[in-house]
Amino acid sequence: DTILQGDVKRGSEISVVCGMCHGVNGISNIPIYPNLAGQKEQYLVLQLKAFRSGERVNIAMTSHAQKLTDQDIADLSAYYAQLDPKPQ
Amino acid sequence: DTILQGDVKRGSEISVVCGMCHGVNGISNIPIYPNLAGQKEQYLVLQLKAFRSGERVNIAMTSHAQKLTDQDIADLSAYYAQLDPKPQ
Repeated sequence: DTILQGDVKRGSEISVVCGMCHGVNGISNIPIYPNLAGQKEQYLVLQLKAFRSGERVNIAMTSHAQKLTDQDIADLSAYYAQLDPKPQ
Repeated sequence: DTILQGDVKRGSEISVVCGMCHGVNGISNIPIYPNLAGQKEQYLVLQLKAFRSGERVNIAMTSHAQKLTDQDIADLSAYYAQLDPKPQ
């Protein structure tokens, strides 16, 4: 796979729908959904691609991930990785 | 599913093997592996059970998870959920 450079600003812009479950700042308010803030960027890329390909299955994530391009995935992952995992 | 109460102390004791990839304090040093510190307890339980059942597949996690009892999963999840996601 080519490693795409993630654009944090664009990631933020396209993250609105993610925030509905994973929290506006990447801290989930829903116990069954993970926090994403400060998570490893490369791990996030791999999981979004796994949801998109069907390798990892989740009723909520599958349909979202299928709409994402490789660049979207890079941008979202860069955005969430740089968020503070412990916001004040 | 019955909700088991997780024992943080026991979780810590049985987390040694997890720490080899996910970091001694739940902050992974390996970009493809996720941080676990401060992650949602219920999410961790669900993922460990998904690895154990084969619903979620990962070459490293599958074999580890297959050795875990429901109580092990509850204890590990309680342990990682209460770790500081941003250690000093």
